[in-house]
Amino acid sequence: MNHTQQRDRLRAVLAGSKCVSPARVYDALSARVAEAVGYEIGLLAGSGVAATTLAAPDLAVHTITEYADQIRRIMRVAKLSLFVDGDNGYGNALNVMRTVEEFEHAGVSGLSIEDTVAPLAFGQAEDEQRLVSIEESAGKMCAAVAARSDPSLVIAARTPALKIEGIEGTLARVKKYAAAGVDAIFVIGPDKVEQLQAIHAATKLPLIVGAFHGTLTREQMAACGVRILHQGHLAIAATVRALRETYSHLFNGGAPADLNSKIASPQQMEQLINAETYRQWLREYMR
Amino acid sequence: MNHTQQRDRLRAVLAGSKCVSPARVYDALSARVAEAVGYEIGLLAGSGVAATTLAAPDLAVHTITEYADQIRRIMRVAKLSLFVDGDNGYGNALNVMRTVEEFEHAGVSGLSIEDTVAPLAFGQAEDEQRLVSIEESAGKMCAAVAARSDPSLVIAARTPALKIEGIEGTLARVKKYAAAGVDAIFVIGPDKVEQLQAIHAATKLPLIVGAFHGTLTREQMAACGVRILHQGHLAIAATVRALRETYSHLFNGGAPADLNSKIASPQQMEQLINAETYRQWLREYMR
Amino acid sequence: MNHTQQRDRLRAVLAGSKCVSPARVYDALSARVAEAVGYEIGLLAGSGVAATTLAAPDLAVHTITEYADQIRRIMRVAKLSLFVDGDNGYGNALNVMRTVEEFEHAGVSGLSIEDTVAPLAFGQAEDEQRLVSIEESAGKMCAAVAARSDPSLVIAARTPALKIEGIEGTLARVKKYAAAGVDAIFVIGPDKVEQLQAIHAATKLPLIVGAFHGTLTREQMAACGVRILHQGHLAIAATVRALRETYSHLFNGGAPADLNSKIASPQQMEQLINAETYRQWLREYMR
Amino acid sequence: MNHTQQRDRLRAVLAGSKCVSPARVYDALSARVAEAVGYEIGLLAGSGVAATTLAAPDLAVHTITEYADQIRRIMRVAKLSLFVDGDNGYGNALNVMRTVEEFEHAGVSGLSIEDTVAPLAFGQAEDEQRLVSIEESAGKMCAAVAARSDPSLVIAARTPALKIEGIEGTLARVKKYAAAGVDAIFVIGPDKVEQLQAIHAATKLPLIVGAFHGTLTREQMAACGVRILHQGHLAIAATVRALRETYSHLFNGGAPADLNSKIASPQQMEQLINAETYRQWLREYMR
Repeated sequence: MNHTQQRDRLRAVLAGSKCVSPARVYDALSARVAEAVGYEIGLLAGSGVAATTLAAPDLAVHTITEYADQIRRIMRVAKLSLFVDGDNGYGNALNVMRTVEEFEHAGVSGLSIEDTVAPLAFGQAEDEQRLVSIEESAGKMCAAVAARSDPSLVIAARTPALKIEGIEGTLARVKKYAAAGVDAIFVIGPDKVEQLQAIHAATKLPLIVGAFHGTLTREQMAACGVRILHQGHLAIAATVRALRETYSHLFNGGAPADLNSKIASPQQMEQLINAETYRQWLREYMR
Repeated sequence: MNHTQQRDRLRAVLAGSKCVSPARVYDALSARVAEAVGYEIGLLAGSGVAATTLAAPDLAVHTITEYADQIRRIMRVAKLSLFVDGDNGYGNALNVMRTVEEFEHAGVSGLSIEDTVAPLAFGQAEDEQRLVSIEESAGKMCAAVAARSDPSLVIAARTPALKIEGIEGTLARVKKYAAAGVDAIFVIGPDKVEQLQAIHAATKLPLIVGAFHGTLTREQMAACGVRILHQGHLAIAATVRALRETYSHLFNGGAPADLNSKIASPQQMEQLINAETYRQWLREYMR
Repeated sequence: MNHTQQRDRLRAVLAGSKCVSPARVYDALSARVAEAVGYEIGLLAGSGVAATTLAAPDLAVHTITEYADQIRRIMRVAKLSLFVDGDNGYGNALNVMRTVEEFEHAGVSGLSIEDTVAPLAFGQAEDEQRLVSIEESAGKMCAAVAARSDPSLVIAARTPALKIEGIEGTLARVKKYAAAGVDAIFVIGPDKVEQLQAIHAATKLPLIVGAFHGTLTREQMAACGVRILHQGHLAIAATVRALRETYSHLFNGGAPADLNSKIASPQQMEQLINAETYRQWLREYMR
Repeated sequence: MNHTQQRDRLRAVLAGSKCVSPARVYDALSARVAEAVGYEIGLLAGSGVAATTLAAPDLAVHTITEYADQIRRIMRVAKLSLFVDGDNGYGNALNVMRTVEEFEHAGVSGLSIEDTVAPLAFGQAEDEQRLVSIEESAGKMCAAVAARSDPSLVIAARTPALKIEGIEGTLARVKKYAAAGVDAIFVIGPDKVEQLQAIHAATKLPLIVGAFHGTLTREQMAACGVRILHQGHLAIAATVRALRETYSHLFNGGAPADLNSKIASPQQMEQLINAETYRQWLREYMR
């Protein structure tokens, strides 16, 4: 399955009638585990890249190019479609274009560009979100769409405007971004079904939802046009817990064999690292 | 703690009287977890880099430079000393020199160069190990030592000769490599205390042991001159198991909240990603 | 023009009836100059990458991945088709596959895999070339072909066998490599038209020729099936001379203005760095 | 000569009494040419990196990490001290810290952080420069100083304030940046000796000057405290002209041999790529 086919599969989900959740992945191996479990869509977030490659918080200290390098490592081997959080495009509209260009080349299936100020402005609190103007944001969305080479690549406009400008401001932004040609609207922080219904009424585009604080079923979500619902960062935290337990056991003198029931089997590991494929190549080309 | 200090701490372990085991780490975050548990020394192996960054088996398809990039990501943030498996130096003596140069620049505390044929030769079986001649290997060890800029960097000569050439061949190699100026001898696959004793008698250098199939205590190991004992690849397999369970739960419709007892706490995550340090920087330089 | 189209243009040259020479390029800017002059095909050699990025001789100390990074920098902006010297694939057949994979991803239009021993073996003289066996070489050519994703990517088998095994050995190799499915035969060091005629008679594949020491016209070359003739490394040496003169002038106190007649005009520089395109983006997306 | 010694040499120039100009370099090979000519200090600018690696104008579309990669390629082999234009640190104070960290690790001897808005703000004209507030700028300078590991690394505060805020605003900024702990003041665009004298009187720090539009001698410059005077981007433009002439000649059917008088000699090329050093390694470690 090549990158265009992976993009088309993501498009099919967005064009469908169900609401699904992607697997949070963060490196090549985690993506392989997710697809072994059955996932067809993975999600890579800036916070995950920052945590695992820089051991840094989500404060935009990573660069487009090192982010793209991590995407490439994943997509070199992953069969799942990968949706990536492209933050605000790391600067102005030209930087948005470079983000789209590099992420597309790295093999991403879809990405979102957000209408927020980032990195933090002088004096801005860490937990405060600020929006850039609707005109500037629309320009960035247009730039993102124009920078795409493969028409199958999904570009989503992401906004946390609900909490900052309320539903009116959000609707104005959604309409403007839809007019810019994006493929989906990514709404952060809704907490009422009426919000989703209003956004769904305002645009024909499929919705992606993150940080949802409500109690809708997936069917109710789907009825509001939501095709992708993001869940939290559990994968990395689960990894960390497993690492802590493993390291603690060994550091305190525990025997490696005691951990046998807590680790993946050799067969699982072999499958994840494509051992049989490599063996076949050895047989075909090296004897 | 800078790279030279990290190297000196590794040297102190090698010059000491105990036998310790390093934590197997594979990315920046796993290294941070290991040091949070108390580890002072980490180990990064080519097999781990291949598995997590390429989803590939340990067949030398990764390059020196992408290996160095992973080391750099780890050492940018890690306080632990990192020992790295440098395989056979990825080519001839000039490639050994480039390996030492790039790994040192990336911040490694110590690395080993092995006297094996790699990548697999035409017709060589996947599980067959072949040694290069003692003269060629000694030249590579001399080259490794000469390529070092920081005299604190530890260079170990690694050999699996015990299984291939027996104790006599191994002792000849160990003496030759010691004469080349390496700082430690890394023996793979011993299964008898007499082997370790003979090697210990043949050189004053500290020993590192991997793939040990015996039943010595750490004190007995230490009495044979062994300062570092490698344990298996448990960390990555533990990670994979945790990922499988997390992904399976969510893929099958399980609630994220059900996983709360299986993940690291927000406080632990914050500590690992240096959140408080970044917050202090925000306070000092951005308001 | 996308990468597949660039590959198809290279294929059209190979399928044509003329013998052309590519421009030797080494970075993004030199490729832009070459295409501004009219070149449709560029050539990037390992020796050029080693010289300009590592200031090292052509001894295989660079890695596949840093080579691919340089290719990517060029192909991000170049419209010309790029043929790349892939040396011997940097290891065994698995490394050949990785070379093809990474170079293809970086955007290369075609590459050659050579049947030589590299890096230098222990005891091998710097100017001595050694061939690997015909069986092993054929396996590498099969692996290269299998590793290709885009069927338009050109894969050439390169051999300097004429000087080592003479015409008989060369013909045997050419036939074997053609049977492996390569798209072209790249012959190094012919000095007689009869050699080219014999190779042309032995295979229907188009020929690429390097290090030719004879006096054939392009028409005569073309009649022997030669479609691409490599000329020497003049571009880098011309660059160095220009740099030496510029630096010497200024270092010795010369006025910058004295150099005006020896540098590209601001208009030429603007065209090379796509200044007008960026300006148009600023107008469209940022006001 | 290691990186700290290279930094100390740059510091010696700043602490001296002369006004010198560095060589504009842009890749490993150009740096080797500059030092062969006699230069002890090189200058790498964002515009040069953008032009040669991205074929893009100086609009901040390159990232910190790819800039650092280019610095590393240069400093892996260069003996000269390298001063780098760090633009505005590519974001906020945290990004400034990352810039200093990555550039220092890559081996830079000194770098400047500018107090301008970059990348271009929405609606900002391409040739318009905007300053960030003095408070925010001072925070970034403090952050840059704090992010340094090697105390020998030179950090300069760069400002084009003369044209925007006049001499009064400039002096206020210079004093504030000096108080932040930077090692030098980098003034862009002065055109009168009185401006330099006023700045020199306001701070004890050495001055660096760029885009000077006046007619001072070097001795007069030095008397105003100027230790480094930047000249234009001639090296790249000279390279481009040489490439155009070489490519045009060959493209139009000219013989390679006709260019012999316009290229560096094989002996010069060998010296630049350290051929003799590699040969010595081959002799010592591979036979």
